[in-house]
Amino acid sequence: MKKLAVVAFGGNALLRSGQKGTYQEQLANVEQTCENLCNLIKRGYNIVIGHGNGPQVGNVMLQHEAGKKEFGIESMPMDFCVAETQGSIAYMIEVGLRNVFARNDIFKDVVTIVTQVAVNKLDPMFSNPTKPVGPYYTKEQAEQLHTETGAIYKEDPKGNGWRKVVASPKPKRINNIKIIKQLAQAGNVVVTVGGGGIPVVEECDYVQGVEAVIDKDLASALCAIQIQADEFYILTDVPKVYINFRKENEKALDTITVDEAKRYLAEGQFAEGSMAPKVRAGIMFIENGGKSCVITEAGQLDNPYCGTRIVR
Amino acid sequence: MKKLAVVAFGGNALLRSGQKGTYQEQLANVEQTCENLCNLIKRGYNIVIGHGNGPQVGNVMLQHEAGKKEFGIESMPMDFCVAETQGSIAYMIEVGLRNVFARNDIFKDVVTIVTQVAVNKLDPMFSNPTKPVGPYYTKEQAEQLHTETGAIYKEDPKGNGWRKVVASPKPKRINNIKIIKQLAQAGNVVVTVGGGGIPVVEECDYVQGVEAVIDKDLASALCAIQIQADEFYILTDVPKVYINFRKENEKALDTITVDEAKRYLAEGQFAEGSMAPKVRAGIMFIENGGKSCVITEAGQLDNPYCGTRIVR
Repeated sequence: MKKLAVVAFGGNALLRSGQKGTYQEQLANVEQTCENLCNLIKRGYNIVIGHGNGPQVGNVMLQHEAGKKEFGIESMPMDFCVAETQGSIAYMIEVGLRNVFARNDIFKDVVTIVTQVAVNKLDPMFSNPTKPVGPYYTKEQAEQLHTETGAIYKEDPKGNGWRKVVASPKPKRINNIKIIKQLAQAGNVVVTVGGGGIPVVEECDYVQGVEAVIDKDLASALCAIQIQADEFYILTDVPKVYINFRKENEKALDTITVDEAKRYLAEGQFAEGSMAPKVRAGIMFIENGGKSCVITEAGQLDNPYCGTRIVR
Repeated sequence: MKKLAVVAFGGNALLRSGQKGTYQEQLANVEQTCENLCNLIKRGYNIVIGHGNGPQVGNVMLQHEAGKKEFGIESMPMDFCVAETQGSIAYMIEVGLRNVFARNDIFKDVVTIVTQVAVNKLDPMFSNPTKPVGPYYTKEQAEQLHTETGAIYKEDPKGNGWRKVVASPKPKRINNIKIIKQLAQAGNVVVTVGGGGIPVVEECDYVQGVEAVIDKDLASALCAIQIQADEFYILTDVPKVYINFRKENEKALDTITVDEAKRYLAEGQFAEGSMAPKVRAGIMFIENGGKSCVITEAGQLDNPYCGTRIVR
């Protein structure tokens, strides 16, 4: 059987800051990422793609807000908005891959599973939501919205106003994971856990959406663990992980062990909200049976020795 | 092997006119529909669900419009908007079914495939777009938008302004149809062709989204044909199909042949934009090997002899 890799990349691979974000721009961006992913396929991997949705879900929430104001359309909660972006982003990835495959004589199907990811309703993050999402409000608006909906609003540290904050709980279970594994092993490229997955709380007898943002690298790591992937690729905007980043003694890391990765994390070598969660996702994968996690940029995937590799 | 049924229902089963359209309302609506679908499962069918998205995609287009005006977020074309609704509607259907299954001790997984449906770029409908979508504009705005984007705008017959019109081409090929069939035959409930499918044009070497609306009953019929479903259920808001509808001599139809259905269609017995396309979808299914097509309302599904049945 072919080797199986999970590849995670951010929503900003499609919707880039500095661009207007037109459909054509996004399609061009996604095709570029897909061209790079082809290198993994040519090297013999079956692949599962987990993607982020940061800029996209932000736009959806603003569109809901504007649609309510202008047309009276009810705004929907985070879980619904994440589901919207799973459809739209996956569609663009599918179009990108199908076109890149056609040009490269790769005969694979691409299939997207709309994916719920269960979190623990007692996750401590729920009592301390920190992830700002959606539009900015005045203090008065935020207070009124809090009274109306119970959602938590916090003042933006940069002084832009008040924003809703939601929890970022740990992913605990990926719905339909057996189907994802089976489709990937059959040679299909599977797109899943978009935006970290649609956050839900599950009990024996019910499932319910929750307002939360699941880290897409952690969700992809959990997916990689559950399908017993051989390798886990986390794509970012630098070719390798660095210690002493942007200092005189900056050093790119080639291969590091889980213990080394943990030591660097403890030293604060990796920025929170940026490299630190990626390294943690890599550690989680290796500690749960994965062989290696590679953190690199998409353009390096033509080199089998690219990036920073975390191993046992 | 179990019998296989495709069930199509409209987006208005979730987002009903007369309601505000809150998330809670939509979830309650979808659970009700899912309760009814359970009757088919209890009668021993594997099922595939094709759903509409009329009210939902209308809202998404308005939200894009408002988001552009208020926040400068680029509006996206129809195909992208349909993809958004495939994610969000399927998510609600999945939650509804999972909860209904839990209450009814049905141990099945529900899985949603984001689904592109190919249309013929030479479909005559493209030269005569008739399906109004999105916001209303003034004549001047419509003319400017036409100049900017090439899209066609027509005046609303009720005098509400000008709206974009898009084509409603025939569905020709459903992407990932083999996977849909395989998942359904394995006993999973599969949600697909949401909103009639994301409309794309395919050539040997590329795929490209197009602005169009594919009729969800025709797309579901094509799905039913391609997976060789035994039966095709089209859910609507009346228990049966009628001739002389709302006249003194109104008559509910029990079982009709394809020839009878065609004769009634030719007589103009069925309203365009309402019952006529459903009957046509039923005819298409039967003429391509299907055993029977049932047109009924969801609440009748507990009765194996419900609705109007179209047979060879």
